[in-house]
Amino acid sequence: MAPYLTDWRGRYTGDALAVVFPDDTVQVAEVVSVCARAGVSIVPQGGNTGLCGGATPLARARAVVINLSRMARVRALDAENNTVTVEAGCTLASIQEIAEGIDRFFPLSLASEGSCQVGGNLSTNAGGVQVLRYGNMRDLVLGLEVVLPDGQVWNGLRALRKDNTGYDLKHLFIGAEGTLGIITAAVLKLFPRPRARSTAWVAVSGPTAAVGLLKALKSTCGDRVTAFEIMGRPALELVFKHIPGARPPIDPLPAWSVLVELSDTVQQEGLSALLERALADALETGAVSDAVVAASLSQTKALWSLRENISEAQRIEGVSIKHDVSVPVSRVPDFIERAGQLLEARWPDVRIVVFGHIGDGNLHYNLSRTDAIDNQAFIGLTPEINRVVHDLVNSLDGSISAEHGLGQLKRDEITRYKSGLELDLMRALKRTFDPNGIMNPGKVL
Amino acid sequence: MAPYLTDWRGRYTGDALAVVFPDDTVQVAEVVSVCARAGVSIVPQGGNTGLCGGATPLARARAVVINLSRMARVRALDAENNTVTVEAGCTLASIQEIAEGIDRFFPLSLASEGSCQVGGNLSTNAGGVQVLRYGNMRDLVLGLEVVLPDGQVWNGLRALRKDNTGYDLKHLFIGAEGTLGIITAAVLKLFPRPRARSTAWVAVSGPTAAVGLLKALKSTCGDRVTAFEIMGRPALELVFKHIPGARPPIDPLPAWSVLVELSDTVQQEGLSALLERALADALETGAVSDAVVAASLSQTKALWSLRENISEAQRIEGVSIKHDVSVPVSRVPDFIERAGQLLEARWPDVRIVVFGHIGDGNLHYNLSRTDAIDNQAFIGLTPEINRVVHDLVNSLDGSISAEHGLGQLKRDEITRYKSGLELDLMRALKRTFDPNGIMNPGKVL
Repeated sequence: MAPYLTDWRGRYTGDALAVVFPDDTVQVAEVVSVCARAGVSIVPQGGNTGLCGGATPLARARAVVINLSRMARVRALDAENNTVTVEAGCTLASIQEIAEGIDRFFPLSLASEGSCQVGGNLSTNAGGVQVLRYGNMRDLVLGLEVVLPDGQVWNGLRALRKDNTGYDLKHLFIGAEGTLGIITAAVLKLFPRPRARSTAWVAVSGPTAAVGLLKALKSTCGDRVTAFEIMGRPALELVFKHIPGARPPIDPLPAWSVLVELSDTVQQEGLSALLERALADALETGAVSDAVVAASLSQTKALWSLRENISEAQRIEGVSIKHDVSVPVSRVPDFIERAGQLLEARWPDVRIVVFGHIGDGNLHYNLSRTDAIDNQAFIGLTPEINRVVHDLVNSLDGSISAEHGLGQLKRDEITRYKSGLELDLMRALKRTFDPNGIMNPGKVL
Repeated sequence: MAPYLTDWRGRYTGDALAVVFPDDTVQVAEVVSVCARAGVSIVPQGGNTGLCGGATPLARARAVVINLSRMARVRALDAENNTVTVEAGCTLASIQEIAEGIDRFFPLSLASEGSCQVGGNLSTNAGGVQVLRYGNMRDLVLGLEVVLPDGQVWNGLRALRKDNTGYDLKHLFIGAEGTLGIITAAVLKLFPRPRARSTAWVAVSGPTAAVGLLKALKSTCGDRVTAFEIMGRPALELVFKHIPGARPPIDPLPAWSVLVELSDTVQQEGLSALLERALADALETGAVSDAVVAASLSQTKALWSLRENISEAQRIEGVSIKHDVSVPVSRVPDFIERAGQLLEARWPDVRIVVFGHIGDGNLHYNLSRTDAIDNQAFIGLTPEINRVVHDLVNSLDGSISAEHGLGQLKRDEITRYKSGLELDLMRALKRTFDPNGIMNPGKVL
């Protein structure tokens, strides 16, 4: 059972009476019924790639892990309705491939897409690099099938673009991290396939210039702006240090880099020219100091791999204090400036590794010390440092978990920032759906 | 008080102890608190343009109507975050104008946009002609402020693109038609402004050809496909009969017409050429028999006004039995064919006026007899005819209320089609939020 009792980062290890692998919804319902009657708690689990311990049982838990991996059928594929109906155990990559197979596009894209599963993507409302244009997982779903905590099956597998017949139950289960029921299948939206892409690496003077560039690009390139990622120099220095073959696209490396991607669902010439014109305008206004537009697919991949390897480079470098925060896009520069000031005033040698989806106001903001020995002591300061970062995020009307969820990791932390009223409403919903508290206890609430 | 006690279509008239016009959220909360203590029920009301009696009090009700019209402030406008924070009483048209004022776009568009209010748009999850590209009202919202049935104010006015910190409460209130609380303000998403549009009127051989054309257009024109509306000949004949100056764009009028709109958020030549090429391809395959691409803004307006005047032409012609249904897009041809067969078999002289958002699988399907005297008797058959149409919709996994909501009109009808489990879950949510049942009683549930 060991692989199913520890989370992907190795931060949490729990106990379980059993790990079960149901083959279909009926079997899920039977297991849940048995557990409900026996008063045994249930931990739903997909690809086990979550970052907050949401799919890991608690220590000394009297729990059954229900792993959905065997439920990986495609139940229906409708090219005219632009929908696919899949079971919870399908990997995200398999759904992207199914869409491509009928000349369609499923936009959700994340680092773990080869192993994460759609049930987990739904339960954590997964984000990633295409949210700017296509939204979070929540925005990509039309219907759900859910096994409720008493073993009843709610069939909400509707494939409708418009349906206004009462409360929208599916949105309760999306992002609930398995605490209200187990998502067993979903109807997902498919989109027109991008026929052209253009990617650029851009040197900007700082976060304010980055936000200004995004605004200018949206004005001239409209919906074509598909990704807009920011990376501070320390984040990229780790990549150059640890990832073989990684090289700065602009030398010397600027203090702040932005990776821009335009895409177009119409096969037309001129997308790169559009991006080049927009960047040339930005060079003139001074918002941009240098830029490289990828001239080939291999150059595009090389640029993206710098961004994608930041997490791996951090892992090799060693442990750090990580944050996944969001603020309104307009307040990102303020957040970066003030967080840096507050942290450097108290911990002068802090290394701030910041990167992420600035187009969504979502930053990964990770703190460490360069010296390994110093860093060990520094990690012990996690509660104090979380306090500084999260209090600032909260004062800027932001979120302390933009795309990773709460799980076990932020379950207590969130009580400092959510209003008592909102927590009360969440608890009331939990009691309504799961009065005996058997669904994934100790997560979210 | 009379104008606030009758719905827009004049179908429902109710009673109230008072109609109140609060100026701000604090006043709404005070009124709700007083009503809650006195056990008086509450009917929230916006522009009073709903089509299902959701904002009209019941007859002999001991109720207070809370009309939100005076709460029409813009609380914040953030061009970099692409959001606007507005109060519930702002009209939809005013929000479209605010967006335009900063070179942005708010896509929701409906016939009543000059008088309907954002609180009502949210409470009914309004749809309209741009859903194909931009989604329903639910998809256009980042945050809400809601006065709960006990008078507490939930501040969920977050302006974040990513926030995964527990259950997403806002989606419970959206589409709940004021039965769980009163929406007093919202953070809305703004989009890049369309810089080019191209519109065509297309003769197709029938609904199957229309769905095939939509598929082909999405393949060649991708996201540029912004609207795709179908109209049967009887619907347009009413327009030519009753609306002065209306003329068929294609003569003789085909049995089925489609209005296509492409738009592009990049200012480029070639959008009309793209549409013309796609239509020429469809002419060759036989899916399309004729097409006219608008050559000027006035031609575009003339084409749209034919579509937009169908409702008015029906009103002049006289009463009919109306349906607002949806099915998966792929099943629309099946629905139209089988519904026609079933109805004509039992009522040979039925006139079927069908039109709507076929790109969303959403049809307005309205039935009458051409002779006014016959029609009076025919209208008396509403329950039997609803049974035929709604049973068929249900057998095709469709919805009996695609975009108008349930209100009073379909509150009982829905109990035939929703599962007992889903109705139980809805009732449980209602009890959780509004245990004394004072919020808009007799609507939805």
